[in-house]
Amino acid sequence: MAEKITKRSDDYSQWYLDIVQRAGLAENSDVRGCMVIKPNGFAIWEKMQRALDRMFKDTGHVNAYFPLFIPKSFLAREEEMAEGFAKECAVITHYRLKTVPGKGLQVDPEAKLDEELIVRPTSETIIWNTYKNWIQSYRDLPLLINQWCNVVRWEMRTRLFLRTAEFLWQEGHTAHATQKEAEDEAHKILMDVYRKFAEEWMAMPVLTGPKTEGQKFPGAVYTLCIEAMMQDKRALQSGTSHFLGQNFAKAFDVKFQNAEGKLEYAWATSWGVSTRLVGGLIMTHSDDQGLVAPPRLAPIHVVIVPIGKSEEERKAVLEVADKLAATLSDLPRDPFFGYEPITVKVDRDFDKSPGFRFNEWELRGIPVRVELGPKDLAANACVLARRDIPGRDGKQMGIPLADAPRSIVDLLKTIQAALFDRAKKFRDANTFEVNSYDEFKKKIEEPGGFLYAHWDGTRETEDKIAAETKATIRCIPFNRSPEKGKCMLTGNPSAGRVVFAKAY
Amino acid sequence: MAEKITKRSDDYSQWYLDIVQRAGLAENSDVRGCMVIKPNGFAIWEKMQRALDRMFKDTGHVNAYFPLFIPKSFLAREEEMAEGFAKECAVITHYRLKTVPGKGLQVDPEAKLDEELIVRPTSETIIWNTYKNWIQSYRDLPLLINQWCNVVRWEMRTRLFLRTAEFLWQEGHTAHATQKEAEDEAHKILMDVYRKFAEEWMAMPVLTGPKTEGQKFPGAVYTLCIEAMMQDKRALQSGTSHFLGQNFAKAFDVKFQNAEGKLEYAWATSWGVSTRLVGGLIMTHSDDQGLVAPPRLAPIHVVIVPIGKSEEERKAVLEVADKLAATLSDLPRDPFFGYEPITVKVDRDFDKSPGFRFNEWELRGIPVRVELGPKDLAANACVLARRDIPGRDGKQMGIPLADAPRSIVDLLKTIQAALFDRAKKFRDANTFEVNSYDEFKKKIEEPGGFLYAHWDGTRETEDKIAAETKATIRCIPFNRSPEKGKCMLTGNPSAGRVVFAKAY
Repeated sequence: MAEKITKRSDDYSQWYLDIVQRAGLAENSDVRGCMVIKPNGFAIWEKMQRALDRMFKDTGHVNAYFPLFIPKSFLAREEEMAEGFAKECAVITHYRLKTVPGKGLQVDPEAKLDEELIVRPTSETIIWNTYKNWIQSYRDLPLLINQWCNVVRWEMRTRLFLRTAEFLWQEGHTAHATQKEAEDEAHKILMDVYRKFAEEWMAMPVLTGPKTEGQKFPGAVYTLCIEAMMQDKRALQSGTSHFLGQNFAKAFDVKFQNAEGKLEYAWATSWGVSTRLVGGLIMTHSDDQGLVAPPRLAPIHVVIVPIGKSEEERKAVLEVADKLAATLSDLPRDPFFGYEPITVKVDRDFDKSPGFRFNEWELRGIPVRVELGPKDLAANACVLARRDIPGRDGKQMGIPLADAPRSIVDLLKTIQAALFDRAKKFRDANTFEVNSYDEFKKKIEEPGGFLYAHWDGTRETEDKIAAETKATIRCIPFNRSPEKGKCMLTGNPSAGRVVFAKAY
Repeated sequence: MAEKITKRSDDYSQWYLDIVQRAGLAENSDVRGCMVIKPNGFAIWEKMQRALDRMFKDTGHVNAYFPLFIPKSFLAREEEMAEGFAKECAVITHYRLKTVPGKGLQVDPEAKLDEELIVRPTSETIIWNTYKNWIQSYRDLPLLINQWCNVVRWEMRTRLFLRTAEFLWQEGHTAHATQKEAEDEAHKILMDVYRKFAEEWMAMPVLTGPKTEGQKFPGAVYTLCIEAMMQDKRALQSGTSHFLGQNFAKAFDVKFQNAEGKLEYAWATSWGVSTRLVGGLIMTHSDDQGLVAPPRLAPIHVVIVPIGKSEEERKAVLEVADKLAATLSDLPRDPFFGYEPITVKVDRDFDKSPGFRFNEWELRGIPVRVELGPKDLAANACVLARRDIPGRDGKQMGIPLADAPRSIVDLLKTIQAALFDRAKKFRDANTFEVNSYDEFKKKIEEPGGFLYAHWDGTRETEDKIAAETKATIRCIPFNRSPEKGKCMLTGNPSAGRVVFAKAY
């Protein structure tokens, strides 16, 4: 009945869309470029929000909320930002509709705004316009503020979660008294929050480092990023943290009196991750059976599938299943799961075959499946099946029911670690050092992956390589070896290897 | 140094604005009608979200996310809705800006949308357009979906939290196979979620019941509401739950096959509460000293103010203060506090006088203050001060330090109950039965409050009373006594008393 998911090896893009659709994660709406995030997809985003929010708060940040609309003139004040975002802005010109006889609902020409508003593509401008009133003295600093919200960038080519006109994200905007403090903040968010979240919660290994000048955020002095490898060996930029210098303080005249009584412009950072991460999670772990969700972000941790033919058998297994579910839900709250209860689904749909039911839950990505039939019950035992290892190899038979809760929690933790290891091995196996441009051009096509190569540090060279190969510099990795060399294209000196890849 | 807050008795409106400003809750932005929710205000909203979200999930609902933008034609499909919201819509007409030499950033006339988009004022239309694809059979029902988001209604007269052009809210949208099930849902949300949340979390007593035809939501068959009394005796509509009948299913052609194989239109509800609740919380409990936050929604539960003159004294009291704070934070998680830790602030600002520090924390509304000076320390004790009873009457002296954690938790629970009782007594003391229109006109001016009066059930009478007295019918209370009578204005028969008040 259920159609099979396209195999990764047959059509990677279609595989991704199949999973997004069949696992009920998202769909395109009738509004161009805007997606509907369906309950199963939104539940993953909520888990991500909870975990990140806790990390932001543990590092001293607080949440606030700034307006959705930005006056056009605000955007114009910071030149790079205006240039970077003007081409993809939703513009509000009127504030009223009216019914015109014979023509229905029409824009009321009398209700034209004096100044157009744009829907925020990012909030530096409106926030720094607000900070102007909040910052007078060094005693008002640092301001460490985050906002969870929607933003709009009018993208022409969209892909569910990865690139949509409207998306959900968090954007941090901090103000500091010194350059060093602001730079430390930008690095701390990247390494102690984004990297940590990607690796420890999403089980998605990431490279960290600055972007090149050509790839940085409009308005930033520099941009730091985390970059992950998807299963098609393309890179996904998964989060960015910007050191903004005094650019926005100057654009919005935000000065403070320092400890010596002198006026200075404040120093800024901004940083964000978005619903794109849900796409990254899907593409890092899932397989040809469907979604694979890492246990720490899985909306449902465990599905119990009781199996029985007769009424009597069904009643007996269901009773034990419900009891096990209750025991799991009532376990003491564990920071590993974000202090949330273990969530358990008991599948009561006996009318479908066990195989069909197993497939459905595999499609949905639930990390652990408990199988419980009359024979298991007779042995006071159950079967645990791992989503990350489908089939017989991932099954543990004859787990005593009394031990099941502890075994299940242990298994969830094991799966989390195994997913990270597998993704890291995959990335490392598809990462190469390349020493000539010929080799580069060949390797970027086949096998693809992350190519560490020497580059002369110029925008021209970067652009030329991108134009010829579609590969871009993903980052200048923090942990690169201090190996000087010669640019693979120009032969000019290079300070060290940078990471090239084709990217989303 | 700190200016005093305006007294309620001098200028109630200014008192409210003073608290919102001085307690750092919100401010007007430079975008007309849009507010900035500042960290202290947002923290209250976050607590509200957490508690409500848990209640939605405990009643079987899941979250999802639908587009910010709605094609103009969608709004037009449901006539009442088009009429109700057309006059206050932000309209997007273009999707690009461009730099025009000499004129700066301008709307690009080439980038005009074929069909204008409006920023959602509420999402029934876009959601029912989506449900069309999700609902085929009775097996797909019920759909119990909630969305947390921002909405925009272009209000001309705004007031922080209470009425703003952009606001944050949740909107539930459910689809059902039968009328009864949908009506039950609308009632359940009102009574088991909104009423319960208002009373048990906000400590804000509410009346419950349907709105009149004249006051219902555009597109609803009927609207149920919770109504609270503020300290100026005006009513605040605090939440609404709508039974939508088959109106949206018909507008968007959402039919399902019922168990008998026949096609039927689905039945709908929608329901929402917004950041307006933050305004309601402030106005229900606060006093002339500042904000009073009910403990279950207070971002900070306890402030410890160590007091000392010498370095040595300060070090000693601070050490005990930090230890007490750690003990409180580490208490087992309590459902009363939404399974969140008790949050404690230790005030380290010894350079200001104790009186100044106490005032600042009272202004911020923190429920319990712990005072800890050298004499207390010598006695191994501390002083607990209740925010809801400022001054000497609210102080408990000589609480042994060893008992302090338990005493503080008990006190937080006592304060929560006391705030509800006080608000309920205030409402009841300002609620009157009125039997003639002359009496009504006098009483609605002085003393004001909730007036229970007979009304003939017609829109004309309701409108006339509103025009003459500015009082509206807040609701037809569920628990009214079955007392028939005669309309105070027309003398026509009345089925029972309804509640009139001036309202926000």
